[in-house]
Amino acid sequence: MLCASLTGNNSMRISLIGAGRVATHLAQAFKVKHQIIDIYSRSFDKTEQLAQQVNASACAQIEEMQSDVDLLIIAVSDQSIATVIQELTGHFPNCLIVHTSGSTHLNVLAQYHERVGVFYPLQTFSLERAVDWNATPLFVEAKQHPDLEILQVLAEQFSQRVYCYDSAQRLSLHLAAVFACNFTNYCYDIAKQVVDAEQVDFSLLYPLILETAQKATQNDPMQMQTGPAMRGDQNIMSMHTHMLEHADRQDLSQVYALMSDQILKRHH
Amino acid sequence: MLCASLTGNNSMRISLIGAGRVATHLAQAFKVKHQIIDIYSRSFDKTEQLAQQVNASACAQIEEMQSDVDLLIIAVSDQSIATVIQELTGHFPNCLIVHTSGSTHLNVLAQYHERVGVFYPLQTFSLERAVDWNATPLFVEAKQHPDLEILQVLAEQFSQRVYCYDSAQRLSLHLAAVFACNFTNYCYDIAKQVVDAEQVDFSLLYPLILETAQKATQNDPMQMQTGPAMRGDQNIMSMHTHMLEHADRQDLSQVYALMSDQILKRHH
Repeated sequence: MLCASLTGNNSMRISLIGAGRVATHLAQAFKVKHQIIDIYSRSFDKTEQLAQQVNASACAQIEEMQSDVDLLIIAVSDQSIATVIQELTGHFPNCLIVHTSGSTHLNVLAQYHERVGVFYPLQTFSLERAVDWNATPLFVEAKQHPDLEILQVLAEQFSQRVYCYDSAQRLSLHLAAVFACNFTNYCYDIAKQVVDAEQVDFSLLYPLILETAQKATQNDPMQMQTGPAMRGDQNIMSMHTHMLEHADRQDLSQVYALMSDQILKRHH
Repeated sequence: MLCASLTGNNSMRISLIGAGRVATHLAQAFKVKHQIIDIYSRSFDKTEQLAQQVNASACAQIEEMQSDVDLLIIAVSDQSIATVIQELTGHFPNCLIVHTSGSTHLNVLAQYHERVGVFYPLQTFSLERAVDWNATPLFVEAKQHPDLEILQVLAEQFSQRVYCYDSAQRLSLHLAAVFACNFTNYCYDIAKQVVDAEQVDFSLLYPLILETAQKATQNDPMQMQTGPAMRGDQNIMSMHTHMLEHADRQDLSQVYALMSDQILKRHH
C-alpha cells in the first residue's frame, strides 16, 4: 500500500552507525536536505572517509556521538543489528532509531526501545555506482504512528515509490530479491566460467542477459520461460550435463540438473 | 574471431522449414533483401500464417517445395533437426542447407549432405517482441569455405556482430546461455511466486532485476556478487530456508540451499 503523502521541509539532525555501502549511499542522499551529525562504525578509517564526504564528525566510540539527534540510522550487517541496538539505547533515550535491513523484523529493535522503525531501500548497492533513488522502492515501518509519519516524509523526499509494509511483507520481498538478484548474478557468474573455459567472449551474452531481464519486467516470467528444460528436450539436457561433467564441473552440473528438473515440472 | 567482411548485394532465393519463433523472426529479417520462396512446417496453420507475412508459398509437404532455391533454413526444434535433414536431402541435392541451433553440431547435417552450415542467432525470441538484429550476435559455420563466405555476407546484412565459431565454441556459448537466460528467468519466476504468496507486488523488484543485469554486463559478475550467502550470513539463510519450508515450498528451499552453498564456497 502506498503511503499517503505528507509535507514537511524541516531539516533534521541525523547520525549513522555504519560506513559501508548502504550507510554511504544513504548519508549522501540525506545530506542534501538534512544535517549529518556523527558517523560511527567498526572501522575508524571507513568512518573518517564517509564523515569527510558528508561533513559529519567521525566517532571512534558510540559514547562520543551527540545524544540529541532526531534520527539515528543503523546501517550495519543484519547479524550485528541486535547487538548494536543494545549498546545504543542508553545513549539515545529519546531518539527515533531505524534499521535499513530488508530481512530483520521490527521486533529486533522494538524489544529494546520505544521509538523504532525501518527505512529499507530495495536496491543492490555498489560503492562504485550512483543510485537512482527516484526509482528505488523505499519501505518504511515504525512501532508508533507519529514516527511512521516522520519516516514517510523523509522517504518521499528522495523516492517517488514509498511503501508502508509490515515486517512479514518486507521479509518476503527480501527473500524474493535473493532469487531475483543474488541467484541470477550467480547464474551470470557460472555462464562466464563456462565460456571462459573455451576462450569465448562473455560479452557475447550481454544482449541476451539484458533482454531476459527486460522481458521479466514486462511480462509474467513464467510465460517468458524458454530453453531445453522448458521444451522438455532431453537430448540437449543430457549433452549439457555431459559437457559439464566432462569438464569436471560437478558443481555446475548439480545446478543444471536441479533447475532443469524444476522448470520441466513447472511447465509439463 | 570476427569474420572478414565480404560484399555482395545479390538477392537470394530462400526457403524455410519451420514456422515457430526463430523461423518467423528470420523470415521477416531475410525478406527485406531476399525472396522467401516456400515455408513448410508440421503445422499448416502456422505455415500459412508465416507464408502470408513474408509473401511466400505455404507448403503442406516437403515435396511441394521448389528444389532450386539458394538457401534452405532448418529452424525447427533441436531434436527434429536430424530427422528433417534426412527427409530433405534427396529433394534439395544442390542447395546450401543450414540449421539455426546453438546446440547442434555441424556433423548432424554434414553426414547427410555436402553443402551444409549453421546460422545461429544468440538471442531469446518471443513472437510478441521485435528483435534488435543489429545488436544480436550471429554465429556462422560451414563445411565448405565458399558456403561460409555466403553465410558471412548474409549475416553481415543484418548484424554488426558476425562470428565464425566452430561447433565446440558455439555449444559452450549455448550452454552458458542456458544459465544466463533460462535459469535467471526461472529465478525471476520463483521471486514472483514468493511475493505473490504475500500479496506483495512483483513490480517492486523491477529496478533490482534491471540493475543486476546491467551490472553483470559492465563488470565481472563474480565481483558483483552480493547477498546473505556472499556475506556468509547463516542467520538470514536459516530464516529464509525456514520461511520456504513453512510455506511448504521444499522445491524452492532446495534451489536456495544449493545456490547459497555454491556462492558461499566460491567466495570464502
